[in-house]
Amino acid sequence: MKLISENKSFGGMHRRYQHEADTTQCTMTFAVYLPRAALAGAKVPVLYWLSGLTCTDENFMQKAGAQRVAAELGIAIVCPDTSPRGENVAVDPEGSWALGLGAGYYLNATQEPWAANYQMFDYVSRELPDLVEAKLPVTKVRSISGHSMGGHGALIVAMKNPGRYRSLSAFAPICHPSAQSLGAASWGRRAFAALLGPDETKWHAYDAVALIKNLSERLPILIDQGSSDDALERLMPQALIAAANACGHPITLNMREGYDHAYYFVASFIEGHLRYHAKALLS
Amino acid sequence: MKLISENKSFGGMHRRYQHEADTTQCTMTFAVYLPRAALAGAKVPVLYWLSGLTCTDENFMQKAGAQRVAAELGIAIVCPDTSPRGENVAVDPEGSWALGLGAGYYLNATQEPWAANYQMFDYVSRELPDLVEAKLPVTKVRSISGHSMGGHGALIVAMKNPGRYRSLSAFAPICHPSAQSLGAASWGRRAFAALLGPDETKWHAYDAVALIKNLSERLPILIDQGSSDDALERLMPQALIAAANACGHPITLNMREGYDHAYYFVASFIEGHLRYHAKALLS
Repeated sequence: MKLISENKSFGGMHRRYQHEADTTQCTMTFAVYLPRAALAGAKVPVLYWLSGLTCTDENFMQKAGAQRVAAELGIAIVCPDTSPRGENVAVDPEGSWALGLGAGYYLNATQEPWAANYQMFDYVSRELPDLVEAKLPVTKVRSISGHSMGGHGALIVAMKNPGRYRSLSAFAPICHPSAQSLGAASWGRRAFAALLGPDETKWHAYDAVALIKNLSERLPILIDQGSSDDALERLMPQALIAAANACGHPITLNMREGYDHAYYFVASFIEGHLRYHAKALLS
Repeated sequence: MKLISENKSFGGMHRRYQHEADTTQCTMTFAVYLPRAALAGAKVPVLYWLSGLTCTDENFMQKAGAQRVAAELGIAIVCPDTSPRGENVAVDPEGSWALGLGAGYYLNATQEPWAANYQMFDYVSRELPDLVEAKLPVTKVRSISGHSMGGHGALIVAMKNPGRYRSLSAFAPICHPSAQSLGAASWGRRAFAALLGPDETKWHAYDAVALIKNLSERLPILIDQGSSDDALERLMPQALIAAANACGHPITLNMREGYDHAYYFVASFIEGHLRYHAKALLS
Protein backbone atom coordinates (compact mmCIF):
# COMPACT_ATOMS: atom_id res chain seq x y z
CA MET A 1 0.00 0.00 0.00
CA LYS A 2 1.68 3.15 -1.24
CA LEU A 3 0.80 6.69 -0.14
CA ILE A 4 0.47 8.84 -3.26
CA SER A 5 -0.67 12.14 -1.73
CA GLU A 6 -1.89 13.72 1.45
CA ASN A 7 -3.53 17.00 2.36
CA LYS A 8 -4.35 18.26 5.80
CA SER A 9 -8.08 18.92 6.04
CA PHE A 10 -10.09 20.12 9.03
CA GLY A 11 -7.40 19.00 11.46
CA GLY A 12 -7.29 15.51 9.94
CA MET A 13 -5.70 14.07 6.83
CA HIS A 14 -7.02 13.31 3.38
CA ARG A 15 -4.79 10.63 1.89
CA ARG A 16 -4.71 8.73 -1.39
CA TYR A 17 -3.20 5.25 -1.58
CA GLN A 18 -2.48 2.73 -4.31
CA HIS A 19 -2.20 -1.02 -3.89
CA GLU A 20 -2.14 -4.16 -6.00
CA ALA A 21 -5.56 -5.77 -5.63
CA ASP A 22 -6.07 -9.53 -5.81
CA THR A 23 -9.77 -9.31 -6.59
CA THR A 24 -9.49 -6.87 -9.48
CA GLN A 25 -5.99 -7.93 -10.59
CA CYS A 26 -4.79 -4.38 -11.06
CA THR A 27 -3.47 -1.35 -9.21
CA MET A 28 -6.36 0.24 -7.31
CA THR A 29 -6.43 3.78 -5.95
CA PHE A 30 -8.50 4.77 -2.95
CA ALA A 31 -8.87 7.81 -0.71
CA VAL A 32 -9.30 8.01 3.03
CA TYR A 33 -10.12 10.84 5.38
CA LEU A 34 -8.72 10.30 8.86
CA PRO A 35 -9.96 12.65 11.58
CA ARG A 36 -7.56 14.07 14.15
CA ALA A 37 -8.24 11.32 16.70
CA ALA A 38 -7.07 8.67 14.25
CA LEU A 39 -3.80 10.55 13.75
CA ALA A 40 -3.31 10.77 17.51
CA GLY A 41 -3.34 7.02 18.13
CA ALA A 42 -7.03 6.16 18.40
CA LYS A 43 -8.87 3.77 16.10
CA VAL A 44 -12.03 5.17 14.58
CA PRO A 45 -15.01 3.62 12.78
CA VAL A 46 -15.39 4.00 9.02
CA LEU A 47 -18.02 5.17 6.60
CA TYR A 48 -17.40 3.55 3.21
CA TRP A 49 -18.51 5.82 0.38
CA LEU A 50 -19.17 4.43 -3.10
CA SER A 51 -19.19 6.95 -5.95
CA GLY A 52 -21.20 7.14 -9.15
CA LEU A 53 -20.63 6.53 -12.85
CA THR A 54 -17.53 8.31 -14.29
CA CYS A 55 -16.18 9.11 -10.80
CA THR A 56 -12.89 8.14 -9.19
CA ASP A 57 -11.89 8.23 -5.53
CA GLU A 58 -11.57 12.02 -5.83
CA ASN A 59 -15.05 13.39 -6.58
CA PHE A 60 -16.62 12.83 -3.19
CA MET A 61 -13.55 13.97 -1.27
CA GLN A 62 -13.27 17.20 -3.27
CA LYS A 63 -16.92 18.12 -3.67
CA ALA A 64 -19.12 16.80 -0.87
CA GLY A 65 -17.75 18.85 2.01
CA ALA A 66 -17.86 15.76 4.23
CA GLN A 67 -14.55 16.25 6.02
CA ARG A 68 -15.81 19.07 8.23
CA VAL A 69 -18.49 16.87 9.78
CA ALA A 70 -16.38 13.69 9.81
CA ALA A 71 -13.71 15.67 11.69
CA GLU A 72 -16.23 16.81 14.25
CA LEU A 73 -17.75 13.33 14.66
CA GLY A 74 -14.43 11.48 14.71
CA ILE A 75 -15.18 9.04 11.91
CA ALA A 76 -13.04 8.02 8.95
CA ILE A 77 -14.32 7.96 5.36
CA VAL A 78 -12.95 5.54 2.78
CA CYS A 79 -13.66 6.12 -0.94
CA PRO A 80 -12.69 3.39 -3.40
CA ASP A 81 -12.48 3.93 -7.13
CA THR A 82 -15.52 2.98 -9.23
CA SER A 83 -13.90 0.30 -11.41
CA PRO A 84 -10.62 -1.45 -12.07
CA ARG A 85 -8.17 0.66 -14.09
CA GLY A 86 -5.07 0.13 -16.18
CA GLU A 87 -3.74 -0.91 -19.56
CA ASN A 88 -4.98 -4.49 -19.35
CA VAL A 89 -8.46 -3.68 -18.06
CA ALA A 90 -11.35 -4.10 -20.53
CA VAL A 91 -13.04 -0.94 -21.77
CA ASP A 92 -16.38 -0.46 -23.50
CA PRO A 93 -15.81 -0.83 -27.26
CA GLU A 94 -18.61 1.69 -27.79
CA GLY A 95 -16.94 4.18 -25.47
CA SER A 96 -20.00 4.77 -23.28
CA TRP A 97 -19.49 6.09 -19.73
CA ALA A 98 -22.09 3.56 -18.53
CA LEU A 99 -19.92 0.46 -19.06
CA GLY A 100 -16.27 -0.27 -18.38
CA LEU A 101 -13.91 2.23 -16.75
CA GLY A 102 -15.70 4.22 -14.08
CA ALA A 103 -18.68 1.90 -14.33
CA GLY A 104 -18.06 -1.26 -12.33
CA TYR A 105 -21.54 -1.36 -10.71
CA TYR A 106 -19.95 -2.91 -7.61
CA LEU A 107 -20.63 -6.43 -8.86
CA ASN A 108 -18.55 -9.49 -9.73
CA ALA A 109 -18.55 -9.92 -13.51
CA THR A 110 -18.90 -13.47 -14.84
CA GLN A 111 -18.41 -12.77 -18.55
CA GLU A 112 -15.21 -12.15 -20.48
CA PRO A 113 -13.47 -9.85 -21.10
CA TRP A 114 -14.88 -8.28 -17.91
CA ALA A 115 -14.54 -11.10 -15.39
CA ALA A 116 -10.74 -10.84 -15.24
CA ASN A 117 -10.83 -7.46 -13.46
CA TYR A 118 -14.40 -6.35 -12.77
CA GLN A 119 -14.73 -7.97 -9.35
CA MET A 120 -15.76 -4.81 -7.58
CA PHE A 121 -18.24 -6.48 -5.24
CA ASP A 122 -15.50 -8.52 -3.62
CA TYR A 123 -13.13 -5.59 -3.73
CA VAL A 124 -15.35 -3.12 -1.86
CA SER A 125 -16.97 -5.73 0.42
CA ARG A 126 -13.84 -7.57 1.49
CA GLU A 127 -10.44 -6.78 0.05
CA LEU A 128 -10.45 -3.03 0.64
CA PRO A 129 -11.91 -3.16 4.18
CA ASP A 130 -9.47 -5.94 5.09
CA LEU A 131 -6.57 -3.81 3.87
CA VAL A 132 -7.77 -0.61 5.50
CA GLU A 133 -8.46 -2.37 8.81
CA ALA A 134 -5.01 -3.97 8.78
CA LYS A 135 -3.01 -0.89 7.82
CA LEU A 136 -4.84 2.22 9.02
CA PRO A 137 -6.05 3.36 12.45
CA VAL A 138 -9.64 2.23 11.95
CA THR A 139 -11.92 -0.32 13.60
CA LYS A 140 -14.06 -3.01 12.02
CA VAL A 141 -17.15 -0.92 12.77
CA ARG A 142 -18.50 0.07 9.35
CA SER A 143 -21.27 1.96 7.67
CA ILE A 144 -21.85 2.41 3.97
CA SER A 145 -23.29 5.04 1.65
CA GLY A 146 -22.94 6.24 -1.91
CA HIS A 147 -24.30 8.28 -4.78
CA SER A 148 -26.12 7.11 -7.93
CA MET A 149 -24.31 3.94 -9.11
CA GLY A 150 -22.59 4.11 -5.71
CA GLY A 151 -25.94 4.33 -3.98
CA HIS A 152 -26.85 1.11 -5.78
CA GLY A 153 -23.50 -0.26 -4.61
CA ALA A 154 -24.15 0.66 -0.99
CA LEU A 155 -27.59 -0.97 -1.11
CA ILE A 156 -26.47 -4.26 -2.61
CA VAL A 157 -23.22 -4.52 -0.64
CA ALA A 158 -25.08 -4.04 2.65
CA MET A 159 -27.96 -6.33 1.65
CA LYS A 160 -25.61 -9.12 0.61
CA ASN A 161 -23.44 -8.81 3.73
CA PRO A 162 -25.84 -9.08 6.67
CA GLY A 163 -24.37 -7.98 9.97
CA ARG A 164 -21.40 -6.28 8.39
CA TYR A 165 -22.61 -2.65 8.41
CA ARG A 166 -24.07 -0.62 11.24
CA SER A 167 -26.04 1.66 8.93
CA LEU A 168 -26.85 2.23 5.27
CA SER A 169 -27.80 5.26 3.25
CA ALA A 170 -27.75 6.47 -0.33
CA PHE A 171 -28.08 9.61 -2.43
CA ALA A 172 -30.10 9.23 -5.63
CA PRO A 173 -29.33 5.51 -5.87
CA ILE A 174 -29.95 3.34 -8.92
CA CYS A 175 -32.54 1.18 -7.17
CA HIS A 176 -33.63 -1.25 -9.84
CA PRO A 177 -30.93 -1.56 -12.52
CA SER A 178 -32.39 -4.71 -14.10
CA ALA A 179 -35.87 -3.19 -14.60
CA GLN A 180 -37.24 -4.39 -17.92
CA SER A 181 -39.76 -1.59 -18.23
CA LEU A 182 -37.01 0.92 -18.95
CA GLY A 183 -35.32 -1.04 -21.69
CA ALA A 184 -32.23 0.67 -23.02
CA ALA A 185 -33.01 3.81 -20.99
CA SER A 186 -31.96 1.99 -17.84
CA TRP A 187 -28.47 2.41 -16.58
CA GLY A 188 -27.52 -1.08 -16.01
CA ARG A 189 -29.32 -3.27 -18.53
CA ARG A 190 -26.65 -3.03 -21.21
CA ALA A 191 -23.88 -3.15 -18.59
CA PHE A 192 -25.48 -6.03 -16.68
CA ALA A 193 -25.85 -8.01 -19.93
CA ALA A 194 -22.17 -7.44 -20.70
CA LEU A 195 -20.90 -8.15 -17.17
CA LEU A 196 -23.29 -10.93 -16.12
CA GLY A 197 -24.52 -12.44 -19.39
CA PRO A 198 -27.96 -12.59 -21.00
CA ASP A 199 -29.74 -14.61 -18.27
CA GLU A 200 -31.62 -11.86 -16.46
CA THR A 201 -32.32 -13.98 -13.40
CA LYS A 202 -28.59 -13.65 -12.63
CA TRP A 203 -28.92 -9.87 -12.62
CA HIS A 204 -31.27 -10.00 -9.63
CA ALA A 205 -28.34 -10.87 -7.40
CA TYR A 206 -27.20 -7.25 -7.81
CA ASP A 207 -30.53 -5.43 -7.89
CA ALA A 208 -31.80 -3.87 -4.65
CA VAL A 209 -35.47 -4.17 -5.58
CA ALA A 210 -35.02 -7.86 -6.34
CA LEU A 211 -32.84 -8.52 -3.29
CA ILE A 212 -34.88 -6.81 -0.62
CA LYS A 213 -37.60 -9.49 -0.41
CA ASN A 214 -35.37 -12.22 0.95
CA LEU A 215 -33.01 -10.59 3.44
CA SER A 216 -32.07 -12.09 6.82
CA GLU A 217 -31.27 -8.60 8.18
CA ARG A 218 -33.61 -5.62 7.98
CA LEU A 219 -31.03 -2.81 8.20
CA PRO A 220 -32.92 0.48 7.78
CA ILE A 221 -32.37 2.36 4.51
CA LEU A 222 -32.08 6.13 4.38
CA ILE A 223 -32.33 7.73 0.92
CA ASP A 224 -32.13 11.36 -0.20
CA GLN A 225 -33.35 12.05 -3.71
CA GLY A 226 -33.67 15.32 -5.65
CA SER A 227 -37.11 15.92 -7.15
CA SER A 228 -35.57 17.71 -10.17
CA ASP A 229 -33.08 14.95 -10.90
CA ASP A 230 -33.17 14.33 -14.68
CA ALA A 231 -32.46 10.68 -13.94
CA LEU A 232 -35.35 10.15 -11.56
CA GLU A 233 -37.29 7.81 -13.86
CA ARG A 234 -34.27 5.60 -14.32
CA LEU A 235 -33.25 5.60 -10.64
CA MET A 236 -36.66 4.25 -9.55
CA PRO A 237 -36.66 5.01 -5.81
CA GLN A 238 -40.42 4.42 -5.74
CA ALA A 239 -39.89 0.82 -6.85
CA LEU A 240 -37.59 0.31 -3.85
CA ILE A 241 -40.07 1.98 -1.50
CA ALA A 242 -42.83 -0.31 -2.78
CA ALA A 243 -40.67 -3.42 -2.47
CA ALA A 244 -39.52 -2.40 1.02
CA ASN A 245 -43.05 -1.73 2.18
CA ALA A 246 -44.23 -5.04 0.75
CA CYS A 247 -41.79 -6.96 2.94
CA GLY A 248 -41.69 -4.66 5.96
CA HIS A 249 -38.14 -3.38 5.40
CA PRO A 250 -37.66 -0.03 7.17
CA ILE A 251 -36.95 2.72 4.64
CA THR A 252 -36.99 6.53 4.60
CA LEU A 253 -37.02 8.53 1.39
CA ASN A 254 -36.36 12.25 1.69
CA MET A 255 -37.56 13.77 -1.57
CA ARG A 256 -35.68 17.07 -1.85
CA GLU A 257 -37.67 19.65 -3.79
CA GLY A 258 -35.80 21.24 -6.68
CA TYR A 259 -32.49 19.41 -6.23
CA ASP A 260 -30.80 17.62 -9.12
CA HIS A 261 -28.25 14.80 -9.45
CA ALA A 262 -25.08 16.87 -8.96
CA TYR A 263 -22.65 16.98 -6.05
CA TYR A 264 -24.26 20.30 -5.09
CA PHE A 265 -27.19 18.12 -4.02
CA VAL A 266 -25.00 15.63 -2.16
CA ALA A 267 -23.14 18.46 -0.40
CA SER A 268 -26.42 20.03 0.70
CA PHE A 269 -27.50 16.92 2.62
CA ILE A 270 -24.32 15.04 3.47
CA GLU A 271 -24.25 16.39 7.02
CA GLY A 272 -27.53 14.69 7.90
CA HIS A 273 -26.29 11.38 6.53
CA LEU A 274 -22.99 11.63 8.37
CA ARG A 275 -24.76 12.31 11.66
CA TYR A 276 -27.11 9.40 10.97
CA HIS A 277 -24.16 7.06 10.38
CA ALA A 278 -22.19 8.41 13.33
CA LYS A 279 -25.09 7.60 15.62
CA ALA A 280 -24.85 3.96 14.54
CA LEU A 281 -21.06 3.84 14.33
CA LEU A 282 -20.43 5.38 17.74
CA SER A 283 -23.19 3.66 19.70
CA MET B 1 -26.14 37.50 -20.01
CA LYS B 2 -27.05 33.88 -20.66
CA LEU B 3 -27.75 31.26 -17.99
CA ILE B 4 -25.77 28.14 -18.85
CA SER B 5 -26.52 25.94 -15.83
CA GLU B 6 -28.05 25.98 -12.38
CA ASN B 7 -28.01 23.67 -9.40
CA LYS B 8 -29.95 24.01 -6.20
CA SER B 9 -27.53 24.12 -3.29
CA PHE B 10 -28.29 24.56 0.42
CA GLY B 11 -31.67 26.08 -0.32
CA GLY B 12 -30.17 28.62 -2.73
CA MET B 13 -28.98 28.44 -6.33
CA HIS B 14 -25.58 27.97 -7.90
CA ARG B 15 -25.73 29.44 -11.39
CA ARG B 16 -23.27 29.85 -14.24
CA TYR B 17 -23.66 32.66 -16.76
CA GLN B 18 -21.92 33.74 -19.94
CA HIS B 19 -21.78 37.24 -21.36
CA GLU B 20 -19.88 39.24 -23.96
CA ALA B 21 -17.40 41.39 -22.06
CA ASP B 22 -16.27 44.80 -23.33
CA THR B 23 -13.12 44.90 -21.24
CA THR B 24 -11.78 41.50 -22.27
CA GLN B 25 -13.39 41.45 -25.73
CA CYS B 26 -14.51 37.85 -25.41
CA THR B 27 -17.23 35.64 -23.96
CA MET B 28 -16.69 35.43 -20.21
CA THR B 29 -18.14 32.78 -17.89
CA PHE B 30 -18.83 33.42 -14.22
CA ALA B 31 -20.58 31.62 -11.38
CA VAL B 32 -22.81 32.99 -8.68
CA TYR B 33 -24.27 31.50 -5.53
CA LEU B 34 -27.54 33.14 -4.52
CA PRO B 35 -28.88 32.30 -1.06
CA ARG B 36 -32.55 31.64 -0.51
CA ALA B 37 -33.35 35.23 0.45
CA ALA B 38 -32.09 36.48 -2.92
CA LEU B 39 -34.44 34.05 -4.69
CA ALA B 40 -37.34 35.26 -2.59
CA GLY B 41 -37.13 38.89 -3.67
CA ALA B 42 -34.52 40.40 -1.34
CA LYS B 43 -31.24 41.93 -2.49
CA VAL B 44 -28.16 40.58 -0.75
CA PRO B 45 -24.54 41.76 -0.49
CA VAL B 46 -21.79 39.99 -2.43
CA LEU B 47 -18.46 38.39 -1.70
CA TYR B 48 -16.35 38.41 -4.88
CA TRP B 49 -14.01 35.43 -5.00
CA LEU B 50 -10.97 35.40 -7.29
CA SER B 51 -9.45 32.01 -8.05
CA GLY B 52 -5.89 30.88 -8.62
CA LEU B 53 -3.71 29.87 -11.56
CA THR B 54 -5.27 27.19 -13.83
CA CYS B 55 -8.73 27.63 -12.25
CA THR B 56 -12.02 28.61 -13.84
CA ASP B 57 -15.22 29.82 -12.19
CA GLU B 58 -15.88 26.23 -11.09
CA ASN B 59 -13.09 25.27 -8.68
CA PHE B 60 -14.14 27.36 -5.72
CA MET B 61 -17.83 26.61 -6.14
CA GLN B 62 -17.22 22.85 -6.30
CA LYS B 63 -14.47 22.46 -3.72
CA ALA B 64 -14.56 25.12 -1.02
CA GLY B 65 -17.82 24.18 0.67
CA ALA B 66 -18.72 27.86 0.90
CA GLN B 67 -22.40 27.60 -0.01
CA ARG B 68 -23.44 26.13 3.34
CA VAL B 69 -22.19 29.17 5.23
CA ALA B 70 -23.22 31.71 2.57
CA ALA B 71 -26.72 30.23 2.73
CA GLU B 72 -26.81 30.63 6.49
CA LEU B 73 -25.43 34.18 6.39
CA GLY B 74 -27.55 35.33 3.45
CA ILE B 75 -24.72 36.54 1.24
CA ALA B 76 -24.10 35.94 -2.46
CA ILE B 77 -20.76 34.78 -3.86
CA VAL B 78 -19.60 35.72 -7.36
CA CYS B 79 -16.68 33.84 -8.97
CA PRO B 80 -15.27 35.16 -12.24
CA ASP B 81 -13.00 33.18 -14.49
CA THR B 82 -9.23 33.69 -14.14
CA SER B 83 -8.49 34.97 -17.66
CA PRO B 84 -10.12 35.76 -20.98
CA ARG B 85 -10.87 32.66 -23.06
CA GLY B 86 -11.61 31.81 -26.65
CA GLU B 87 -10.12 31.19 -30.06
CA ASN B 88 -8.76 34.71 -30.52
CA VAL B 89 -7.26 35.05 -27.04
CA ALA B 90 -3.46 34.90 -26.81
CA VAL B 91 -1.93 31.83 -25.19
CA ASP B 92 1.56 31.27 -23.82
CA PRO B 93 3.72 30.00 -26.71
CA GLU B 94 5.70 27.98 -24.15
CA GLY B 95 2.50 26.38 -22.83
CA SER B 96 3.14 27.21 -19.18
CA TRP B 97 0.19 27.34 -16.80
CA ALA B 98 1.67 30.51 -15.30
CA LEU B 99 0.97 32.78 -18.30
CA GLY B 100 -2.00 33.11 -20.63
CA LEU B 101 -5.22 31.12 -20.22
CA GLY B 102 -6.06 30.66 -16.56
CA ALA B 103 -3.35 33.16 -15.62
CA GLY B 104 -4.62 36.70 -16.04
CA TYR B 105 -3.18 38.00 -12.73
CA TYR B 106 -6.15 40.37 -12.47
CA LEU B 107 -4.24 43.16 -14.19
CA ASN B 108 -4.65 45.25 -17.36
CA ALA B 109 -2.03 44.14 -19.88
CA THR B 110 -0.30 46.85 -21.87
CA GLN B 111 1.75 44.69 -24.26
CA GLU B 112 0.63 42.84 -27.37
CA PRO B 113 -0.61 40.23 -28.02
CA TRP B 114 -1.98 40.31 -24.47
CA ALA B 115 -3.46 43.79 -24.23
CA ALA B 116 -6.34 43.00 -26.59
CA ASN B 117 -8.05 40.68 -24.08
CA TYR B 118 -6.12 40.51 -20.80
CA GLN B 119 -7.92 43.39 -19.08
CA MET B 120 -8.89 41.39 -16.04
CA PHE B 121 -8.41 44.25 -13.56
CA ASP B 122 -11.12 46.30 -15.21
CA TYR B 123 -13.24 43.21 -15.70
CA VAL B 124 -13.31 42.08 -12.07
CA SER B 125 -13.24 45.60 -10.59
CA ARG B 126 -15.93 47.20 -12.76
CA GLU B 127 -17.54 45.36 -15.64
CA LEU B 128 -18.55 42.21 -13.78
CA PRO B 129 -19.86 43.95 -10.63
CA ASP B 130 -21.78 46.45 -12.81
CA LEU B 131 -23.39 43.56 -14.67
CA VAL B 132 -24.14 41.51 -11.58
CA GLU B 133 -25.59 44.51 -9.75
CA ALA B 134 -27.79 45.38 -12.73
CA LYS B 135 -29.09 41.90 -13.46
CA LEU B 136 -29.10 39.88 -10.23
CA PRO B 137 -30.74 40.41 -6.84
CA VAL B 138 -27.62 41.82 -5.16
CA THR B 139 -26.66 45.13 -3.61
CA LYS B 140 -23.60 47.29 -4.23
CA VAL B 141 -22.24 46.19 -0.85
CA ARG B 142 -19.12 44.18 -1.68
CA SER B 143 -16.29 42.24 -0.11
CA ILE B 144 -13.46 40.47 -1.86
CA SER B 145 -11.30 37.41 -1.29
CA GLY B 146 -9.36 34.86 -3.28
CA HIS B 147 -6.78 32.09 -3.36
CA SER B 148 -3.17 32.19 -4.56
CA MET B 149 -3.14 34.30 -7.77
CA GLY B 150 -6.69 35.21 -6.74
CA GLY B 151 -5.47 36.25 -3.30
CA HIS B 152 -3.08 38.59 -5.09
CA GLY B 153 -6.06 39.74 -7.17
CA ALA B 154 -8.17 40.44 -4.10
CA LEU B 155 -5.34 42.43 -2.50
CA ILE B 156 -4.61 44.63 -5.50
CA VAL B 157 -8.23 45.12 -6.56
CA ALA B 158 -9.19 46.27 -3.06
CA MET B 159 -6.06 48.43 -2.66
CA LYS B 160 -6.60 50.17 -5.99
CA ASN B 161 -10.31 50.77 -5.38
CA PRO B 162 -10.52 52.57 -2.04
CA GLY B 163 -13.99 52.65 -0.53
CA ARG B 164 -15.35 49.99 -2.86
CA TYR B 165 -15.09 46.92 -0.58
CA ARG B 166 -16.26 46.46 2.98
CA SER B 167 -13.67 43.78 3.75
CA LEU B 168 -10.70 41.97 2.23
CA SER B 169 -9.16 38.58 2.83
CA ALA B 170 -6.98 36.06 1.04
CA PHE B 171 -5.86 32.43 1.18
CA ALA B 172 -2.19 31.85 0.40
CA PRO B 173 -1.97 34.99 -1.75
CA ILE B 174 0.91 35.83 -4.08
CA CYS B 175 1.94 38.90 -2.11
CA HIS B 176 4.93 40.22 -4.01
CA PRO B 177 4.84 38.99 -7.61
CA SER B 178 7.48 41.42 -8.88
CA ALA B 179 10.07 40.46 -6.24
CA GLN B 180 13.48 40.41 -7.88
CA SER B 181 15.03 38.19 -5.25
CA LEU B 182 13.15 35.18 -6.55
CA GLY B 183 14.12 35.58 -10.19
CA ALA B 184 12.49 33.02 -12.41
CA ALA B 185 11.19 31.10 -9.39
CA SER B 186 8.60 33.82 -8.85
CA TRP B 187 5.16 33.39 -10.23
CA GLY B 188 4.66 36.63 -11.90
CA ARG B 189 8.02 37.89 -13.13
CA ARG B 190 7.85 36.18 -16.50
CA ALA B 191 4.11 36.86 -16.78
CA PHE B 192 4.45 40.48 -15.65
CA ALA B 193 7.22 41.04 -18.22
CA ALA B 194 4.99 39.64 -20.94
CA LEU B 195 1.82 41.45 -19.88
CA LEU B 196 3.30 44.78 -18.73
CA GLY B 197 6.63 45.04 -20.54
CA PRO B 198 10.22 45.13 -19.30
CA ASP B 199 9.99 48.31 -17.19
CA GLU B 200 9.67 46.85 -13.69
CA THR B 201 8.46 50.09 -12.16
CA LYS B 202 5.20 49.49 -14.06
CA TRP B 203 4.84 46.14 -12.32
CA HIS B 204 4.53 47.82 -8.93
CA ALA B 205 1.05 49.01 -9.85
CA TYR B 206 -0.08 45.38 -9.44
CA ASP B 207 2.07 44.25 -6.53
CA ALA B 208 0.54 44.33 -3.03
CA VAL B 209 3.87 44.84 -1.26
CA ALA B 210 4.66 47.80 -3.50
CA LEU B 211 1.15 49.27 -3.33
CA ILE B 212 0.53 49.10 0.40
CA LYS B 213 2.78 52.05 1.30
CA ASN B 214 0.69 54.69 -0.45
CA LEU B 215 -2.95 53.82 0.17
CA SER B 216 -5.63 56.35 1.05
CA GLU B 217 -7.71 53.63 2.75
CA ARG B 218 -6.38 51.24 5.38
CA LEU B 219 -8.85 48.36 4.89
CA PRO B 220 -7.73 45.53 7.22
CA ILE B 221 -6.24 42.45 5.54
CA LEU B 222 -6.99 38.93 6.75
CA ILE B 223 -4.74 36.15 5.41
CA ASP B 224 -4.73 32.41 6.00
CA GLN B 225 -1.60 30.59 4.90
CA GLY B 226 -0.61 26.92 5.20
CA SER B 227 2.78 26.34 6.82
CA SER B 228 3.39 23.27 4.61
CA ASP B 229 2.57 25.08 1.37
CA ASP B 230 5.27 24.16 -1.16
CA ALA B 231 4.86 27.62 -2.64
CA LEU B 232 5.44 29.52 0.60
CA GLU B 233 8.77 31.05 -0.46
CA ARG B 234 7.25 32.36 -3.66
CA LEU B 235 4.06 33.65 -2.06
CA MET B 236 6.01 35.87 0.39
CA PRO B 237 3.36 36.66 3.02
CA GLN B 238 6.12 37.83 5.37
CA ALA B 239 7.08 40.56 2.90
CA LEU B 240 3.50 41.84 3.02
CA ILE B 241 3.43 41.67 6.81
CA ALA B 242 6.64 43.68 6.97
CA ALA B 243 5.38 46.26 4.47
CA ALA B 244 2.04 46.54 6.28
CA ASN B 245 3.69 46.96 9.64
CA ALA B 246 6.05 49.60 8.24
CA CYS B 247 3.13 51.80 7.20
CA GLY B 248 0.65 50.91 9.94
CA HIS B 249 -1.73 48.94 7.73
CA PRO B 250 -3.82 46.51 9.82
CA ILE B 251 -3.08 42.92 8.84
CA THR B 252 -3.66 39.47 10.37
CA LEU B 253 -1.80 36.40 9.15
CA ASN B 254 -3.10 33.05 10.38
CA MET B 255 -0.29 30.57 9.76
CA ARG B 256 -2.00 27.17 9.63
CA GLU B 257 0.31 24.41 10.77
CA GLY B 258 0.64 21.52 8.32
CA TYR B 259 -1.76 22.82 5.67
CA ASP B 260 -0.72 23.00 2.02
CA HIS B 261 -1.88 25.01 -1.02
CA ALA B 262 -4.84 22.82 -2.03
CA TYR B 263 -8.55 23.47 -1.81
CA TYR B 264 -8.59 21.12 1.20
CA PHE B 265 -6.84 23.99 2.97
CA VAL B 266 -9.26 26.62 1.67
CA ALA B 267 -12.25 24.47 2.64
CA SER B 268 -10.88 24.01 6.15
CA PHE B 269 -10.87 27.75 6.85
CA ILE B 270 -13.44 29.28 4.50
CA GLU B 271 -16.10 29.45 7.21
CA GLY B 272 -14.04 31.86 9.29
CA HIS B 273 -13.47 34.12 6.29
CA LEU B 274 -17.14 34.07 5.31
CA ARG B 275 -18.18 35.05 8.82
CA TYR B 276 -15.54 37.79 8.81
CA HIS B 277 -16.88 39.19 5.54
CA ALA B 278 -20.51 38.83 6.59
CA LYS B 279 -19.84 40.95 9.67
CA ALA B 280 -18.68 43.76 7.37
CA LEU B 281 -21.26 43.17 4.64
CA LEU B 282 -24.26 43.02 6.95
CA SER B 283 -23.31 45.80 9.36
